Amino acid sequence: MRISIIGLGLIGGSFAKDLRKAGLASELLGVESSAEHAARALQLGLVDRVVTLDEALQQSETLLLAVPVNAITTLLPRMLDGIRPTQTIIDMGSTKFKIAEAVRLHPNRERYVAAHPMAGTENAGPEAALEGLFKGKTVLLCDLEWSAPDACKTALEIFHAVGLKFEFMTSEQHDRHAAYVSHLSHVAAYALSLAVQSEEKAGYAVPRLAGGGFASTVRLAKSAPEMWVPIFEQNRENILTAIDAFSERLQTIRQCIASDDPAKLEALIREANQIRDLL
Amino acid sequence: MRISIIGLGLIGGSFAKDLRKAGLASELLGVESSAEHAARALQLGLVDRVVTLDEALQQSETLLLAVPVNAITTLLPRMLDGIRPTQTIIDMGSTKFKIAEAVRLHPNRERYVAAHPMAGTENAGPEAALEGLFKGKTVLLCDLEWSAPDACKTALEIFHAVGLKFEFMTSEQHDRHAAYVSHLSHVAAYALSLAVQSEEKAGYAVPRLAGGGFASTVRLAKSAPEMWVPIFEQNRENILTAIDAFSERLQTIRQCIASDDPAKLEALIREANQIRDLL
Repeated sequence: MRISIIGLGLIGGSFAKDLRKAGLASELLGVESSAEHAARALQLGLVDRVVTLDEALQQSETLLLAVPVNAITTLLPRMLDGIRPTQTIIDMGSTKFKIAEAVRLHPNRERYVAAHPMAGTENAGPEAALEGLFKGKTVLLCDLEWSAPDACKTALEIFHAVGLKFEFMTSEQHDRHAAYVSHLSHVAAYALSLAVQSEEKAGYAVPRLAGGGFASTVRLAKSAPEMWVPIFEQNRENILTAIDAFSERLQTIRQCIASDDPAKLEALIREANQIRDLL
Repeated sequence: MRISIIGLGLIGGSFAKDLRKAGLASELLGVESSAEHAARALQLGLVDRVVTLDEALQQSETLLLAVPVNAITTLLPRMLDGIRPTQTIIDMGSTKFKIAEAVRLHPNRERYVAAHPMAGTENAGPEAALEGLFKGKTVLLCDLEWSAPDACKTALEIFHAVGLKFEFMTSEQHDRHAAYVSHLSHVAAYALSLAVQSEEKAGYAVPRLAGGGFASTVRLAKSAPEMWVPIFEQNRENILTAIDAFSERLQTIRQCIASDDPAKLEALIREANQIRDLL
């Protein structure tokens, strides 16, 4: 099948690499709003041709939307307007409920499959594309009862080809869980980066002192605002709840340290250690 | 030279592996309070013999203290009591000021070198020992003006042999910086683990939903309380200051999300992104 990828960044570019390797696409088309990224994607051989969104809609059977979530809510209804019953659109956005809402009553809703591959890095753009990024990771498929069976089948085929495992849930469930296991991690990393930078104003101590632990905890703070501001907007309520839960635990730990309560601190750390069994 | 390693866990065990490989030790002795860990360390070939602390003091020229920081403040003065002028004790603790205080007026203070290799993992015990753990990392050497020149030379020789780069500072400076670039990361990871676990009570969603980002941010939450409760106690004031700075930034981000201020949120994220240039 001819596949178009809308957005040739980390996620779109990585899909391009893996789909090409899997031999699933007869031709790979790319749509990219940045001329520079488009040129680089062609240079890297991520796609065979760069086309306009309308050309992609005309010429491909399957379209993967790998753009920031605010662009998805804008583009998806427009793309569904002209979709043919043999075509499938799959989005890769990190939020699902607002996107679901944007097309819930669309007459061609069933040609769309809502998905979120739980994979990525802190880097962006075509250069960030990684072969094998999705292997062994999980894709969350949402509200599949609203998608046509053949569209679901196409989505599963594509995700299976790049090595993703499947999980199914509603878009509401997705956004609540994603707030905790993905979005909150980004908020925490951003806050950690800001706090450390505010202290280490001279700038010299961070590279000198930082070990692998700090680098690991702060890694997500390198993630671009173009992607994350729209996620925070679209999943606002769940993220605020998650931040409050996090803040409460942070204050509990602070209180144990401040009041010199090693027994309670040890109990909290042992509870925190249990994340070992879940990951 | 004959080297004794007190504490055959992650740090002590990793030193044992690298020192053996570097050919620096004519014999490696180990002191370990857990009989199980002692047996495992011998089985893994980390040290040649396991001895008592007194035997280690009798029989070795150099002693590396790789035990939790509360054990260091207890053991170090006692070890210095009987030290000979040809022997050197080097500690590897994650705090420095309280340890410095514990021996500041000791008549044999100059036989001790205060150090903190900025390397580690979230794992503990002899099994956690990793060859090459220290390669390219930095060791912070503190208050060297209080150590004898030949003791400093021995410490530098040992750290150089395992691939560590050197930085020099006072123990006060160390504890303040370490609160931000190391200890705060652990507090944040523990709080994140607790928050996510409290939400995901059913336990099913974390392994299903977690991507590499969450795993990276929460990794340090696997770290053992035996090591971290004493660090939080010994560096209390600096850590509380760092937690408060972190908490303030967290609330700033929360406020931007709550009040739907994408411009300010973007500015904060761009500032957080600058950690890229420092790491």
